[in-house]
Amino acid sequence: MPPGVSLNESDIQVQLNRRRPGQSSLTTPRDEKDKVEILSGTEKGVTLGTPIAMMVRNNDQRPHDYTDEKLDAIPRPSHADFTYLEKYNIKASSGGGRSSARETIGRVAAGALAEKYLKETLNIDIVAFVSSVGHVEIPSYDTNNEEMPLRTEYLNLLNSVTREIVDKENVRCPDADVAEKMRERIMAAKAKNDSIGGTVTCVIRNVPVGLGEPCFDKMESKIAQAMMSIPATKGIEIGSGFRGTCIPGSKHNDPFVRKQDGTLGTSTNWSGGIQGGITNGENIYFRIAFKPPATISQEQVTARYDGEQAVLENRGRHDPCVVPRAVPIVESMAAIVLMDMFLTQSGRKAAADRVDPAAVQALPNSMKKRKYSSTQSA
Amino acid sequence: MPPGVSLNESDIQVQLNRRRPGQSSLTTPRDEKDKVEILSGTEKGVTLGTPIAMMVRNNDQRPHDYTDEKLDAIPRPSHADFTYLEKYNIKASSGGGRSSARETIGRVAAGALAEKYLKETLNIDIVAFVSSVGHVEIPSYDTNNEEMPLRTEYLNLLNSVTREIVDKENVRCPDADVAEKMRERIMAAKAKNDSIGGTVTCVIRNVPVGLGEPCFDKMESKIAQAMMSIPATKGIEIGSGFRGTCIPGSKHNDPFVRKQDGTLGTSTNWSGGIQGGITNGENIYFRIAFKPPATISQEQVTARYDGEQAVLENRGRHDPCVVPRAVPIVESMAAIVLMDMFLTQSGRKAAADRVDPAAVQALPNSMKKRKYSSTQSA
Amino acid sequence: MPPGVSLNESDIQVQLNRRRPGQSSLTTPRDEKDKVEILSGTEKGVTLGTPIAMMVRNNDQRPHDYTDEKLDAIPRPSHADFTYLEKYNIKASSGGGRSSARETIGRVAAGALAEKYLKETLNIDIVAFVSSVGHVEIPSYDTNNEEMPLRTEYLNLLNSVTREIVDKENVRCPDADVAEKMRERIMAAKAKNDSIGGTVTCVIRNVPVGLGEPCFDKMESKIAQAMMSIPATKGIEIGSGFRGTCIPGSKHNDPFVRKQDGTLGTSTNWSGGIQGGITNGENIYFRIAFKPPATISQEQVTARYDGEQAVLENRGRHDPCVVPRAVPIVESMAAIVLMDMFLTQSGRKAAADRVDPAAVQALPNSMKKRKYSSTQSA
Amino acid sequence: MPPGVSLNESDIQVQLNRRRPGQSSLTTPRDEKDKVEILSGTEKGVTLGTPIAMMVRNNDQRPHDYTDEKLDAIPRPSHADFTYLEKYNIKASSGGGRSSARETIGRVAAGALAEKYLKETLNIDIVAFVSSVGHVEIPSYDTNNEEMPLRTEYLNLLNSVTREIVDKENVRCPDADVAEKMRERIMAAKAKNDSIGGTVTCVIRNVPVGLGEPCFDKMESKIAQAMMSIPATKGIEIGSGFRGTCIPGSKHNDPFVRKQDGTLGTSTNWSGGIQGGITNGENIYFRIAFKPPATISQEQVTARYDGEQAVLENRGRHDPCVVPRAVPIVESMAAIVLMDMFLTQSGRKAAADRVDPAAVQALPNSMKKRKYSSTQSA
Repeated sequence: MPPGVSLNESDIQVQLNRRRPGQSSLTTPRDEKDKVEILSGTEKGVTLGTPIAMMVRNNDQRPHDYTDEKLDAIPRPSHADFTYLEKYNIKASSGGGRSSARETIGRVAAGALAEKYLKETLNIDIVAFVSSVGHVEIPSYDTNNEEMPLRTEYLNLLNSVTREIVDKENVRCPDADVAEKMRERIMAAKAKNDSIGGTVTCVIRNVPVGLGEPCFDKMESKIAQAMMSIPATKGIEIGSGFRGTCIPGSKHNDPFVRKQDGTLGTSTNWSGGIQGGITNGENIYFRIAFKPPATISQEQVTARYDGEQAVLENRGRHDPCVVPRAVPIVESMAAIVLMDMFLTQSGRKAAADRVDPAAVQALPNSMKKRKYSSTQSA
Repeated sequence: MPPGVSLNESDIQVQLNRRRPGQSSLTTPRDEKDKVEILSGTEKGVTLGTPIAMMVRNNDQRPHDYTDEKLDAIPRPSHADFTYLEKYNIKASSGGGRSSARETIGRVAAGALAEKYLKETLNIDIVAFVSSVGHVEIPSYDTNNEEMPLRTEYLNLLNSVTREIVDKENVRCPDADVAEKMRERIMAAKAKNDSIGGTVTCVIRNVPVGLGEPCFDKMESKIAQAMMSIPATKGIEIGSGFRGTCIPGSKHNDPFVRKQDGTLGTSTNWSGGIQGGITNGENIYFRIAFKPPATISQEQVTARYDGEQAVLENRGRHDPCVVPRAVPIVESMAAIVLMDMFLTQSGRKAAADRVDPAAVQALPNSMKKRKYSSTQSA
Repeated sequence: MPPGVSLNESDIQVQLNRRRPGQSSLTTPRDEKDKVEILSGTEKGVTLGTPIAMMVRNNDQRPHDYTDEKLDAIPRPSHADFTYLEKYNIKASSGGGRSSARETIGRVAAGALAEKYLKETLNIDIVAFVSSVGHVEIPSYDTNNEEMPLRTEYLNLLNSVTREIVDKENVRCPDADVAEKMRERIMAAKAKNDSIGGTVTCVIRNVPVGLGEPCFDKMESKIAQAMMSIPATKGIEIGSGFRGTCIPGSKHNDPFVRKQDGTLGTSTNWSGGIQGGITNGENIYFRIAFKPPATISQEQVTARYDGEQAVLENRGRHDPCVVPRAVPIVESMAAIVLMDMFLTQSGRKAAADRVDPAAVQALPNSMKKRKYSSTQSA
Repeated sequence: MPPGVSLNESDIQVQLNRRRPGQSSLTTPRDEKDKVEILSGTEKGVTLGTPIAMMVRNNDQRPHDYTDEKLDAIPRPSHADFTYLEKYNIKASSGGGRSSARETIGRVAAGALAEKYLKETLNIDIVAFVSSVGHVEIPSYDTNNEEMPLRTEYLNLLNSVTREIVDKENVRCPDADVAEKMRERIMAAKAKNDSIGGTVTCVIRNVPVGLGEPCFDKMESKIAQAMMSIPATKGIEIGSGFRGTCIPGSKHNDPFVRKQDGTLGTSTNWSGGIQGGITNGENIYFRIAFKPPATISQEQVTARYDGEQAVLENRGRHDPCVVPRAVPIVESMAAIVLMDMFLTQSGRKAAADRVDPAAVQALPNSMKKRKYSSTQSA
C-alpha cells in the first residue's frame, strides 16, 4: 500500500459489513459482527507505506467441544474434509478450518485498502452484482442475434450500475423484478433444506490503459486466478465469454473510434476491456459461477471414511445461496488484482520516463506512437 | 524438472507438431517446422535436474522490410497493437512481437517435459479436444434434466478419450459426425475471409489426491490462471461450471462411495475432481472458450492512431479458427500446473513423513485419518 | 510448516526470552515480556500444516505523546529516520516504526518453529554465540600458520558448543575468561554513554547433504541474505572466510575421507560445509559483524533536516552492545533458511525417487553415483 | 528492462571481454571469445520492454569423450562433484556442468543491461577492483586509529576510481605498486601449480536515496545474497564491516551535514551508504572474499567415492587466482541488485505521487518531511 493514504477502520468495515453473515434472511443466521482492527501500517489514520496488519476476531463460534463419533466418521460431500485429511493427514476439528469461507474476510479487508487507493487516485469504479440465481437471471444474451453477444440493455447496466443501486435489494441484484424472483428461488431452496447456485457479474470502469503483463500475467489471467480462488467458484468468463465463441470475427472485433476526449477507444467492447492481456481503457467485465453451497440440512446418503455407506445429517448453520454475500468478495479480489498490476506498470513507466526519448523517436513509424495530429489540433 | 528422466527432442517434437501452423487445411498456410533443440539440462538423453533450455527458430517469417505508412497508421482491431504502444511506447515492427501466439511454442515445449514426468511416474493422462466450433458442439448438457448438469455420454467420453482418437480428425473433435460439421463451419468462415471461435475441453485422469493449495493457489485457481493466459481465451469452467449454478445442492453434492480398490471416491463428479481447491482423485475436467481470431482478411472500418476513420485490409496469413491448434497448448498448460502442484505437495509430504506420528495419533478422531478397517480387510 | 508437529507457545517462548530486552544488566532496561500467542495453524498443540499466525503485543512502550519540535527536527545519525522519510515521505512518530529492531521478534518466533522441526526430524543443531565484543575475541585465527585459517581449538569449540554452555554467561560467550572481558568492555561503553560492536558466530551441525540450489539460491547466498537482513549487521564470512583468501589452494582444499559410518566426509572443513552452494554434510559455520548501536546517550553534533547544525541528545533506552541478544536472532534466521532449503530439496528428491532408475543406471560411471563397494562390505 | 533504451551487443561485449578466460597471463589459457548474440527483446537497437534473450556459445571446450575410470572415481576436493551427485543422483560428465563458473557469463550479460540503464538515466557509477591477493593488499585499515575504521586514502580511492584506472593493470588493482606485487603472488602460485585467493572491493556512486526495502530485502541483504551467489565467495562486508565492530558508536555514527547542493548528507560514511536497509545517497561500498581456486595441478591425496584413499592429478586448465576476472562479475551483480531495487521503489513512488498530499500535510512534524528552509532559500 503506498504511503500517505487516509485510512481508517471504517473504510474497511463497510465492505466487511456487506460480506458478514446474518445480514439478511437470505444468509446464514450465524451472527458475526466482523469488526476489523488495524494493528500496524498506519498512524493517525494515514498509511505509512509499510505492511498493514488487520485483525477480525470470531465471536459467534460454537466450538466443537464434544466428539460426535458418528458424524466425525463421515466426510461431508463436496467439502474439503476428505481432501484436507489426504493432503495433511490432520484437519481442524470443527468447521472447515483453513478451508472455511471465513478466510474471505481477509480478502475483503485487503481489497478495501486497494479500492480506496484506486478510487481516490485513479477514479476506478468496481461494482459487482448478482446476475443469476439458479435459472433466474438478468437477461444478458440475445440468442437470436448473432452480431451481438450481449444485449445493449445489459451493457448499459454495466456502464451505470452502482453499489447503492445494488444494495437496494438484499439479494444484490440491480433489477428489482429479477431480484424478487431470485429471493423466491433462494427461499424455496431454504424451505427444502436445500441450496442453489448463481452468478456474480463485476464491472471495472475508468481503468487506465496499459495494465497487465504479457504471457502468464495477462490481466484476464490474474483476474481468473483471483476469482477462481474464491470458495465455491466453478467458472469465469470475461467480455463476450463463452457466447462470444459463436460470433464471427468480423462481428466480434472491436473497431477503434475517436472518443469525445480525443483519445482512442472502441465502439464495441466484446474484448471486455483487455487486448493482448493488457487493458485498453474500456470497461473490464466478467461473470463468475458459484456452485450451490455444499452444506445442506437434508439427509445425504454417502460413505464414511472407511467406505461404509452412511447417512449424513448436517446441523450447521449455512447460506442457502452464497452469491449475495459473494458480491463484496468479488469486488475485493478485483481491486487486489488491479492494484498489483497498477504497481507493476507504475514501476515500469516511471523507469521508462527517465530514458532519453531520442532512441524511440529515431525509430520508424511502425514501431512508435504516432503523433495524434487531429487530437492535438482539437 | 527432476533428475534422471529420459528426455529427447522427440518427446517434445510430437506436441510441437500438433501445435505448428500449416498442418492442415484448417490452419494458417504459414509453414513452420518448429524443430526444437535442447540446449542444456540433459546429457545423453537424461535430465540432470538443472534447468532445461530449448530453442525453436523461426523459418518462414516474412520480414516487414518496408514501411507501409497507411497500414502502420492503423492499430488492428482486437489485437495488441494499441495496448502495447500505450504500455511500452514502442512495439515490434511486424507481427505481434511478444503478443504473438507464437510464444505458445514455449508453453508446449515445457508442457511436454512436465507431461513426460507425470505420465511415467504417476500415469497421469491429459487429453484435450475441440468441444465446439461456433454453435456446432458435442452435446454435453441436458437442459431438461435438472439433476444432471452433464450428460452421461459426455462423462463417458471424458473417461475414455485418447489423443489417438482426438487426432483421427484434423479438427481434433473425437466425435466424427460433429467433427465434420465443425470442419464445415470453419471452412465457411474461411470462405468469407472471416473467423469463428470455439471451445476446448480437457480432462486429466489418474490425478493423485491432495494436490492444490488452500486459498490463492487452489488447483482450479492455478488452472484458470494458466488457461486464461493462453492467447484468445475468454472463459473457463471447471466441473459442472456455469450450468452447475442451476442445480440444487442436494443434487450437486458428490456423495462418497467405496471404490473397487477399496479407497474412497465419489459417485458423481460435478466438482470436477477438486474439493476445497485440492484434488480428490476423480477426473479434473474443464472447458475453455476461445474467441474468433482477430486477424481476418475482410476489410474492417476502424480508426487510425490519430482517430481518423480508416479501412484496414489485412493481408497476413491466419487461422480461421484456433481451437484445433489450441488442443496441445491446453494440454501443456495443464501439465505445467499439475507438475508445479505435485512438486509443492511432494515437498510437504516428504517433510511430513519424517515427523513422529505420535502427536497425530493422540488426537481425537475428528482430526485425523480414520483406520480404514474394511479396506484393510479387503 | 509441515503438519503433525507438536507445537506450543513454550517452544517459541524460550527463544523469545533469550531475545527480549531487560534480561540482564548488559541490555536495555526497557522491559518487555514478549509473550507469544499462537492465533492459528495449530489445534490441541499439533500443527495443521496451514499457516501459523502468532502475536506478541508491546507492553512497556512509552508513547511519543507530545511533539518535541527540537528533537523531531533532527534525524538520528545512522538511524533510518532520514532514509524512511526520503523513501516514504512519512514515518512513524516515535521509535523506528518498521525499522525498529523490535521486528526481529517475528524472526525469532518463526525460527523457533523451523528449529523444532529440524531438531526433531533431522537432529540438526544450531548454536550461535558471541565471538567478539570490540577487540575482545575468542581466539580463532592463527596468523603465523599459513596452512590453518582457523585454530584447532576453535574448530573443536564449533563441534561441541551448546546453548546451555553459551547461556552460562549473560554475554553469551562460551569462554568464561573471554566473557568476563567482554562484559567489562560493554560496561565500559555503557559508562561512557557509548556503544560497541561485536561478532556472533553460528554453527549448524548434522546438516543433510544436498541442501542449497545452484546459482542464485546457493546455501551461502541464502544464509548471507538472511543474516545481512538482521538490523545492524555489516558483514558475514562463511567457513575460512576473509582469512581463507590468504591460504594456497593446496592447503585450502578439503580432502575427502571415509568417515566412521562409511560415508564420505572431508578431513578439513575450510569450505564451511558447503561446496558449489550445496551442503556436504560437514558443519556449516559463519561469523557475522554487528556494528555498535547507533542510539547512544552522548550528545552528538549533527544536522537538522533543514541542514542547520544541531546537537542531538538521545534519551531513549538502548543496548550498549547488541550481540548478546542477537544470538537467538542469528539462530532463528539460520533455521528459517535451512527449513526453506530442506523443503525445496525434499520436493525434488521425492519427485526424483519416483523415476525409473534405469535411465541413470545406463549412464557412464562419470555421470552417476558409484557403487560404494567398501562401504557396502562394511 | 524498461523500453526505449539503446542497446547493442557491443554494450554487453565490453564486460564479457573483461570476464572472458585467456585475456592475460594471469588467467586460464582456455580461450573463449564469449561473443554474445541478442535473440529477442530489442529491435533496431532499442529495447522493447519485453524480456531480452541473449546467447553465448562455447567454442574452446574439450569434450570429455572418453571415460577415465580412475579420474572419474574421485570427487575433486572442494568442488561440487560430490554434492551434485548427492543432490541429483546424476551429474554432467565433464567440467562442472551447472556448477561451472562459466554460468557467470549470464550474470555479466544481464548486469551490462542494468548498468546501461543505471548509468544513462541516473548517472550511477559502479566500479570494482582487486583489493587483495593473498596477503598483498591495498592498505585500507589503520589499526592504530580507533576512530577511523578505514583510511582516508582508501576512501578517496573509492570516490575517484574508474574502470579505466582499474584496467591499466591486468590484475585489476588501481595501485600500480600493489598490482605488481599481486602479479608476483599469482605467478608464484602458478609456478607451484597452486592457487591463491583474494578480495574484490566495489563502490557504487551517485546512488538515489530511498532504495532498499525494510526487513528481508534490505539493500545490504540483497547485495550480500547476490555477491555470495558468485562462485568461490566466502564473505562480504559492507561499509566499516568487520573492523567497524571495534569502533565505539560515538565514532561510528555518521553525522548529518548539509551538502554543497543543499541536500542532506553525512560527513563520514561508515554505514556504507545504507541506513536501516535503505540507501542514503552516500557511496555504497563493500568487499568480497574469494577463496583460492579449488582446481590445482598439484597431486592431491583424497578419497574415491567408495572411500578408498586415492591421488588426484588434475589436468584441467584453470585460473591460479580468480579475482581479476571476478571484477566485472561483481559489478554486474551490483547492477542487477540496484536495478531491481530501483524498479521496486519507482513503482511505489509513482503510486505515492498520485495520492492527495493533504493527509500527510496534516500530520505532526515528527511524521513528515520538514520544509528545508535554507535549501529553499539557496
